[in-house]
Amino acid sequence: MTRRFALTLEYDGTPFMGLQRQPHGPSVQQTVEDAARAVTAEDAVMFAAGRTDSGVHALAMRAHIDLQKDLTPFRLMEALNYHMRTAPVAVTHCETVPDDWHARFSCTGRAYEYRICNRRAPLTLEADRAWLVPQELDAEAMHRAAQALVGQHDFTTFRSAHCQAASPLKTLDSLDVSREGQSVVIRTAARSFLHHQVRSIVGCLALVGMGRWRERRIGDALAAADRNELGLNAPPQGLYFVEAIYPES
Amino acid sequence: MTRRFALTLEYDGTPFMGLQRQPHGPSVQQTVEDAARAVTAEDAVMFAAGRTDSGVHALAMRAHIDLQKDLTPFRLMEALNYHMRTAPVAVTHCETVPDDWHARFSCTGRAYEYRICNRRAPLTLEADRAWLVPQELDAEAMHRAAQALVGQHDFTTFRSAHCQAASPLKTLDSLDVSREGQSVVIRTAARSFLHHQVRSIVGCLALVGMGRWRERRIGDALAAADRNELGLNAPPQGLYFVEAIYPES
Repeated sequence: MTRRFALTLEYDGTPFMGLQRQPHGPSVQQTVEDAARAVTAEDAVMFAAGRTDSGVHALAMRAHIDLQKDLTPFRLMEALNYHMRTAPVAVTHCETVPDDWHARFSCTGRAYEYRICNRRAPLTLEADRAWLVPQELDAEAMHRAAQALVGQHDFTTFRSAHCQAASPLKTLDSLDVSREGQSVVIRTAARSFLHHQVRSIVGCLALVGMGRWRERRIGDALAAADRNELGLNAPPQGLYFVEAIYPES
Repeated sequence: MTRRFALTLEYDGTPFMGLQRQPHGPSVQQTVEDAARAVTAEDAVMFAAGRTDSGVHALAMRAHIDLQKDLTPFRLMEALNYHMRTAPVAVTHCETVPDDWHARFSCTGRAYEYRICNRRAPLTLEADRAWLVPQELDAEAMHRAAQALVGQHDFTTFRSAHCQAASPLKTLDSLDVSREGQSVVIRTAARSFLHHQVRSIVGCLALVGMGRWRERRIGDALAAADRNELGLNAPPQGLYFVEAIYPES
């Protein structure tokens, strides 16, 4: 009899080709599945709430995996962390969940954070952890412009050409920009996101912050529903998956 | 004619043998001096407010260097950062100062921060950026115990055998411990510190936080003025030099 274990994962996305297993390089999924095999001798598949790209980080990705071996969640967490000790992935929480709980399909909300370091000097301690933007950003203008994207819209402009979603229609619950010292932080939440949606939004908001785009151009680009209207796709290293939300069981 | 440039440095201490030039490995000092030579063709020596050990970081170390080349502080900062782009050191601020301003000898206050990540799971994004302590820490007990160290004392117990200071007498202006989520942060300020003083204090406070030392043992260890009373020296990677204070000129 298998039991379903829900995992909370933290990872540094830098050395990975992304969360999902890839044929030609390391992934978070493969790292966790390999560790699970080392612990249980079972070939289990991990499912996750989101699919982060190469270089994108997670503070609290949620995932699940079905295992037959009789282990407490605590022992599984400890054993997975032991076997993943050379990779920058850690299980920060583990619990058993009902068989109908699915990390991806039961998830009703996702939240991301994007960190910009707004200064001229190169990054040191934040290298691979933030996007360095040397031009001074007007975070308040970015926040005002961002509000045009909140709500249900066709996000074709802010969607990767490789996006596999059936529809470009998504509902942004919130999109907030704030300055924290020399950092500008963008926080956003939605039921789900399109591929590259957050990075595309951040890139265009940065253009507003630099004064290269007027504030209202964000809404115009959205209304165009045309990928050619995208101004800039922000790089992956500033992006963090921060929360997956599930209905109370 | 030389001019004195004051630099504010941020660095990741991980790849360095420390701030000071060492014969057998890379140092922050050598990195900055090599960059200054590349920019000016001058063999200038850098002086810094503090001497951080290998693995110890700085958010705002202060230093100075005397150069003959006619450069604005902004151009010097940009040129140094360009030449240091492969090393995790950055000049975040640069200005000219009077010839009697000395980064080390004019400095009247130094502040450090020490970051503990208090959880069982291994570090990922904070690897080399914090000390991982798996035992649950009582930060309030640590803070209470720490107050025995504030003020002027003989800090022999909390001093490296290699410390070159003439006297073990130092005055801690503040020593505060607070919990910030899963982190425990120790902040301290003094005119100057002994070698390993902050790490030795943090190590012993962690023993209090774990319940292995009673709170009053911190004061007892101090009063003993005996290095053998030291319980634990915290590792370097959690330590950050955060501020150097100078009198208003």
